[in-house]
Amino acid sequence: MNWLNEAGPERDVTLTSRIRLARNIADIPFPTVMLPEHARQVAEKVRNSIFDFSGHQRFAGIKFAYIKMSDVPEIERQILVEKHLASQDLMEHPEVSAILLDSNEEITVMINEEDHIRMQCVLPGFQLSKAWETISYIDDLIEEQVDYAFHEEFGYLTSCPTNVGTGLRSSVMMHLPGLTMSNQMNAILQTITKIGLTARGIYGEGSEALGSIYQISNQVTLGPTEEDIINNLSIVSRQIVDKERQARKALRQAGGIQFEDSLWRACGLLLHARIMSLKEFMSLISSVRLAVSMGLIPGVALEKIDAVMTMGQPANVMKKAGGRLKGKEVDVERANIIRGAMREILNL
Amino acid sequence: MNWLNEAGPERDVTLTSRIRLARNIADIPFPTVMLPEHARQVAEKVRNSIFDFSGHQRFAGIKFAYIKMSDVPEIERQILVEKHLASQDLMEHPEVSAILLDSNEEITVMINEEDHIRMQCVLPGFQLSKAWETISYIDDLIEEQVDYAFHEEFGYLTSCPTNVGTGLRSSVMMHLPGLTMSNQMNAILQTITKIGLTARGIYGEGSEALGSIYQISNQVTLGPTEEDIINNLSIVSRQIVDKERQARKALRQAGGIQFEDSLWRACGLLLHARIMSLKEFMSLISSVRLAVSMGLIPGVALEKIDAVMTMGQPANVMKKAGGRLKGKEVDVERANIIRGAMREILNL
Repeated sequence: MNWLNEAGPERDVTLTSRIRLARNIADIPFPTVMLPEHARQVAEKVRNSIFDFSGHQRFAGIKFAYIKMSDVPEIERQILVEKHLASQDLMEHPEVSAILLDSNEEITVMINEEDHIRMQCVLPGFQLSKAWETISYIDDLIEEQVDYAFHEEFGYLTSCPTNVGTGLRSSVMMHLPGLTMSNQMNAILQTITKIGLTARGIYGEGSEALGSIYQISNQVTLGPTEEDIINNLSIVSRQIVDKERQARKALRQAGGIQFEDSLWRACGLLLHARIMSLKEFMSLISSVRLAVSMGLIPGVALEKIDAVMTMGQPANVMKKAGGRLKGKEVDVERANIIRGAMREILNL
Repeated sequence: MNWLNEAGPERDVTLTSRIRLARNIADIPFPTVMLPEHARQVAEKVRNSIFDFSGHQRFAGIKFAYIKMSDVPEIERQILVEKHLASQDLMEHPEVSAILLDSNEEITVMINEEDHIRMQCVLPGFQLSKAWETISYIDDLIEEQVDYAFHEEFGYLTSCPTNVGTGLRSSVMMHLPGLTMSNQMNAILQTITKIGLTARGIYGEGSEALGSIYQISNQVTLGPTEEDIINNLSIVSRQIVDKERQARKALRQAGGIQFEDSLWRACGLLLHARIMSLKEFMSLISSVRLAVSMGLIPGVALEKIDAVMTMGQPANVMKKAGGRLKGKEVDVERANIIRGAMREILNL
């Protein structure tokens, strides 16, 4: 997940920016009702839109790999999900689903997810416009070869009515410990809902906001233009970034040494614990991320902390351990991995 | 406090062994009723029992310094108490009290405490016999020059009836986290009370058993001989040492990684916290001491941990900070000192 190892604008609050487009191919039944034969047709058409008959890419610049989910071991599939390179939905029918993944791991085209095509671009920090440019370019490339299901009045047609129109979901993943600690999140969540946005936890719909990480995205896809949707999210996101920075400043001033103490203690536990649940891990790494963003722990890049955050996720822990882990074994292995990683980057 | 920096027998459970004798000088009123003039006479007589008219010591081997409490700054007096080199009682009347302190800081003769003379020897680990030999020798040296208040039937007379007879208090300072964690301490405390022993916290009578540290000593001074008293305490102490070791073993086996996790977390907090109360500090350092004694943290000598324990005591923290500290400033300074000291000895 290269975007996690790279710096990005407003990285102190914004982990990533993501643009996703939902598309379906005309004259093939939608995934909810299609037969395996149809799924194969979809996969072939999308693949052929990127690669010509000799297997060469139709365009230069971005370099894609075509990966059938049936060729990917279960653990690697979960890692794709944890890296936000693919969705859990895509893994429901691995016998027919596939992805096109670019060599920078910024762009994914998911095939036979809830829609025939779900293409997304994820960039580090606050880069919605650049992500939109990129995915728009990919969309055009595919559309040169494929007829999309499109309705004059409604726009792009999708399996779920919430995606009809632009088929666009723009989202920013934000680290909001300041607003969480100062109990401002509920008010913010209520406000953004009123203006057509929604907030979810790190693993999407219904997931808990572990480690004070929120995905904020547009709810409405029908009506406004793509530019309006992205603009709306951009404006609100920047306001939240400002509010979060103010909250951090206030916490530091009011909390003084007691506040710093709590962040350093989190650091101490990550460096020494022998068992750690995902929930505790996310809470502690959130504190350390806050401390780094404030300059309390000097000489550490935020993207290094974010990379550790990924290492602590369940499938990543399992893979590193090289096998199936049961019950608290995951928590023991997580503690081992995190201890080593933190020691390396903290240089204390 | 040299004994804290030295190894000693059964150091895993026994921090120190201490023998103390209470003596009063015949024909001078006891401290509770004496006038300042009497106190001066006591100090002079005790001093002259060690040094001749030219200021030379009357004997070789042990080297004493004579220190008037009125010459010792308040903070240094508290450090003497924290080092267990003098009692809090001695500090009640600093204008007349004094100590003779040997260069190894193992032997102290307190002058004008609750009794005219309180002499003690503290050694690292389990060394009651050696401490008794040493203090017995000092007692003889003083008695060559001074007439003790002695009653044919009762023995040595003291201010408080609980010390009459031998005037002897023998005690061992024990670290009993295993018995504490496995809830066996109450039963042990009840048992030892029945056989004429008593248990107190690290700062003597009435003090809380911070960090699972207990001073176990004889209650009875009248009746049995000195050897009987010391023997009795020795036998019981060795039984407690065994029980503590069994409890640690059982905890480690039953607790497994969860138990180790709790000890390492204590380590992490000592290494990183920015504020730390005395109570929390004693609890955490107790866990680390346990971990070291079990070999969980290799390459660290227990006496180094015990030295850190002393560094974290209030007067030591104040002195290191070089001035009066108010409220939570002590806790901040303690955290600073402990962080540095732990980093140095742990070598993680």
